[in-house]
Amino acid sequence: MTTPDHETYTIGVDFGTLSGRAVVVRVSDGAELGTAVHEYRHGVLESTLPGGSVRLGDAWALQVPDDYRDVLRTAVPAALRDAGVPPDRVVGIGTDFTACTMVPTLADGTPLDEVTQFADRPHAYVKLWKHHAAQGQADRINALAAERGETWLPRYGGLISSEWEFAKALQIHEEDPEVYDAMERWVEAADWIVWQLCGRYVRNACTAGYKGILQDGEYPSAEFLTALAPGFATFVTDKLDQPIGELGSRAGSLTTEAAAWTGLPEGIAVAVGNVDAHVTAPAARAVEPGRMVAIMGTSTCHVMSADVLREVPGMCGVVDGGIVAGSYGYEAGQSGVGDIFGWFTRTGVPADYRDAAAEAGESVHEHLTRLASEQEVGEHGLVALDWHSGNRSVLVDHRLSGLLLGTTLATRPEDIYRALLEATAFGTRVIVETFRASGVPVEEFVVAGGLAKNPLLMQIYSDVLRMPLSVIGSDQGPALGSAIHAAVAAGCYADVPVASKAMGRVHRGAYQPDEGRSQAYDALFRIYSDLHDHFGRQVSTMRDLRALRGDVLDRKAAGR
Amino acid sequence: MTTPDHETYTIGVDFGTLSGRAVVVRVSDGAELGTAVHEYRHGVLESTLPGGSVRLGDAWALQVPDDYRDVLRTAVPAALRDAGVPPDRVVGIGTDFTACTMVPTLADGTPLDEVTQFADRPHAYVKLWKHHAAQGQADRINALAAERGETWLPRYGGLISSEWEFAKALQIHEEDPEVYDAMERWVEAADWIVWQLCGRYVRNACTAGYKGILQDGEYPSAEFLTALAPGFATFVTDKLDQPIGELGSRAGSLTTEAAAWTGLPEGIAVAVGNVDAHVTAPAARAVEPGRMVAIMGTSTCHVMSADVLREVPGMCGVVDGGIVAGSYGYEAGQSGVGDIFGWFTRTGVPADYRDAAAEAGESVHEHLTRLASEQEVGEHGLVALDWHSGNRSVLVDHRLSGLLLGTTLATRPEDIYRALLEATAFGTRVIVETFRASGVPVEEFVVAGGLAKNPLLMQIYSDVLRMPLSVIGSDQGPALGSAIHAAVAAGCYADVPVASKAMGRVHRGAYQPDEGRSQAYDALFRIYSDLHDHFGRQVSTMRDLRALRGDVLDRKAAGR
Repeated sequence: MTTPDHETYTIGVDFGTLSGRAVVVRVSDGAELGTAVHEYRHGVLESTLPGGSVRLGDAWALQVPDDYRDVLRTAVPAALRDAGVPPDRVVGIGTDFTACTMVPTLADGTPLDEVTQFADRPHAYVKLWKHHAAQGQADRINALAAERGETWLPRYGGLISSEWEFAKALQIHEEDPEVYDAMERWVEAADWIVWQLCGRYVRNACTAGYKGILQDGEYPSAEFLTALAPGFATFVTDKLDQPIGELGSRAGSLTTEAAAWTGLPEGIAVAVGNVDAHVTAPAARAVEPGRMVAIMGTSTCHVMSADVLREVPGMCGVVDGGIVAGSYGYEAGQSGVGDIFGWFTRTGVPADYRDAAAEAGESVHEHLTRLASEQEVGEHGLVALDWHSGNRSVLVDHRLSGLLLGTTLATRPEDIYRALLEATAFGTRVIVETFRASGVPVEEFVVAGGLAKNPLLMQIYSDVLRMPLSVIGSDQGPALGSAIHAAVAAGCYADVPVASKAMGRVHRGAYQPDEGRSQAYDALFRIYSDLHDHFGRQVSTMRDLRALRGDVLDRKAAGR
Repeated sequence: MTTPDHETYTIGVDFGTLSGRAVVVRVSDGAELGTAVHEYRHGVLESTLPGGSVRLGDAWALQVPDDYRDVLRTAVPAALRDAGVPPDRVVGIGTDFTACTMVPTLADGTPLDEVTQFADRPHAYVKLWKHHAAQGQADRINALAAERGETWLPRYGGLISSEWEFAKALQIHEEDPEVYDAMERWVEAADWIVWQLCGRYVRNACTAGYKGILQDGEYPSAEFLTALAPGFATFVTDKLDQPIGELGSRAGSLTTEAAAWTGLPEGIAVAVGNVDAHVTAPAARAVEPGRMVAIMGTSTCHVMSADVLREVPGMCGVVDGGIVAGSYGYEAGQSGVGDIFGWFTRTGVPADYRDAAAEAGESVHEHLTRLASEQEVGEHGLVALDWHSGNRSVLVDHRLSGLLLGTTLATRPEDIYRALLEATAFGTRVIVETFRASGVPVEEFVVAGGLAKNPLLMQIYSDVLRMPLSVIGSDQGPALGSAIHAAVAAGCYADVPVASKAMGRVHRGAYQPDEGRSQAYDALFRIYSDLHDHFGRQVSTMRDLRALRGDVLDRKAAGR
């Protein structure tokens, strides 16, 4: 490959749940020239620490920080080689991470699991986003915040998640005080990796706001923390509070050590950290107010900027500069989307369908999609609720569950599959309508993530939302977004919106709503809404069933 | 086999939907000594008449009466041979039939399809019970009866079925007046076969009441019939009204011709006709008031005698002497039971389950049952509504549909299977409770039919109903019941209850409710009841969905 003298490049590195991916991007137009993936050696620790002798409790999920450094050591040089780009043409590196994923460290950034005395202590390891063992702590945070009328609570739709910084830290404080005392910093992995690259600890505005409860320049007060747990009163001042970096700004320069790991020139720009979902917005040219980006995979995360600050019921959060500096960034989500389709294809589709799919050279998903495409809206006679993983937007209740209504002896697997696709579209419509009703306009719907490849699903979303659907033009949205941030940090563009225009890619209006289908879906959506409100708000049926199931499982676990 | 001199025998013949079964039974103790089955040559005519040139409309279902005679010609002699019983020891023959299955005949009983000029006329053939093309007529009968406040309407739970005598006759009247005019008698197949055996037309009290709207000695009035359709005014007097025979009484004596067909002695007793479900009660020793017999197969039919006459919402009917002379016979039903389990095993169970079942030498039903047996009540976290074929008891609405609530990504096929088993048990509990609330005591629950062989299902019913469950001791309940009626008609016993005690067989209390499980089911039943009332009574969701589906299918059929 020839690399014209005037071209420069940046690297975007996307740290996912199981692996990290590096992409080499041309600054002038965002072309992705090379990529490489590195899988974390330890993956996700869910039953034991490395070595196997220390067991973990229920709902734990840990990682090993050095696995993240390995991505810098292997995937970045490999992506450079894949691109054929001379390292000295690279002017910056940007990163994004899962969140809220937290690293307990010493004051110099050394992870506690690398301090010999703590190597066998679970609380010394990274708490991955899906570590769910701090629910008790989250419940107390929420109850206390509601009781005290903390003004930050409505900024999170009324609920602080057990996944976030305070609940996870409080768990350490209560379960392993020695590790808690030794922990001098409680660092988002998104910021820790930047610290490794440039030697400076800068908290990015995104996670500090969405996961760290930083609102209007303030964290939860010492009074609140004292009321929560007396020994936790100085948590913010001692371990959390650090300078905040705007998204797209330069956190620092690549250190000698990180240059050696990556093969990149020492001193190039290192962008402030970011989150995988949020960083996708500029990659999809969707940083302007009103452009809602849905990153659709096993679950869906919705991010959108707006000029106005509003409290939207059940949203994950609103953060000033949470997606781009100068706008309010909103986040919402659906806890189950692709994983509901996956569950159904695994457990609900009979052998003859599997055989027919194999014969046609299709996956079971493709086979069901093709069969489901042949029917008209309403033909299957079904409506489903997409709460198989609970509901994390609008209703915010993980004890809710799935529902399928309208089955007859003529109901076929492709009917149920289509009803499930539609249910997730209806769930998205509830979110969009809730934003609008709260005074936050939603003017465009932009899809990123793996599910964008299913044209039936995309058309259903367009018809159900009655909106044109745009689709991101990259399979590596987060990494491209990180490379865009790196270009801004390197001074190649004035700001993220300008860089997004030059480097982002989107097929605008790739799907258009059909008026006839939209009208038919309006009728089904009214039924979905009735079921949504009935089971989500008016009756406790699903919660009661969950409680009955919980009682049985507890009794069984206790051997009674 | 030796046949002691003092032993006598009767023959019971059960005419089902696809075949007829003859059983030879010892009068002294009801022992079943031999059996034979004959499949109807023409089966069920659903698309064309025999020969294929005359096409039938949607929802038609016809049969050919001579196929029934073939059962007498082949299955009866074969059963005698199988039993090794000398024909001269047989003292009577009894029969039962599907209902309401109707034969249009001349005054001498000749079926109209055997009259040459009508051989190519669909309305000249037998209308099988599941002929559903008279729904429009039934709707008008119901609307007019409700408007006029006809006192017989509440005896049928408020609804006359399109399957019954009046709706089917009105269809002929309106669609083929020539056949209607030529039809001198409109005969239940249950009575037509008796007519063939003994040469006398006697209407049995069971179908005359349940299907012929004979209440307190009166059919619907001429005023009612005139209001329904002027030309239909004389339907009862001209074509329907004939002497009624009590169940268990002697309709007549075996003719020379029928003796030649069957190989039985001329002149032996021929019992009054009966219906397959109702005739099962004496076979299960359940003719006393308060013993509810559930004949459980693809659907369930409940029959029970009582001393009191009450109007039970949504029952199929109450008829004086409808099960045994001297008591009020009640009938109720669930439209989908075994066929819901069958639908799920065919369409909702993945390949690995099918493979595991095959490896274990089990059917998919057995495999799911075994897996489902391993869990405790409430463990799956699910509740279903068993309305996949609509609801024909209590709610009486065929536009209702199935529902499954509580699914998560951890829900497995055996969980759903168990939830469906439980849903049908809850549906039965609604019926039992409705009877009790209406002042009709239900004191014992007796199961007959193929599903009695599933011990998990039986235990669930016992636990859900909080009642001991008895199980019939015969695989051929209807035929045994017919043989019992034959023994009474032959004078071997004073009446059906006495004969039932001697010849019927039941495992009384075969399943006992467990208090802990019953309590757990009480909680699930409360949820089922809430869903039942919400979707069955308070909202029109299921009917709306069915209408949307109907619109699409109609539009597709019209090619638009």
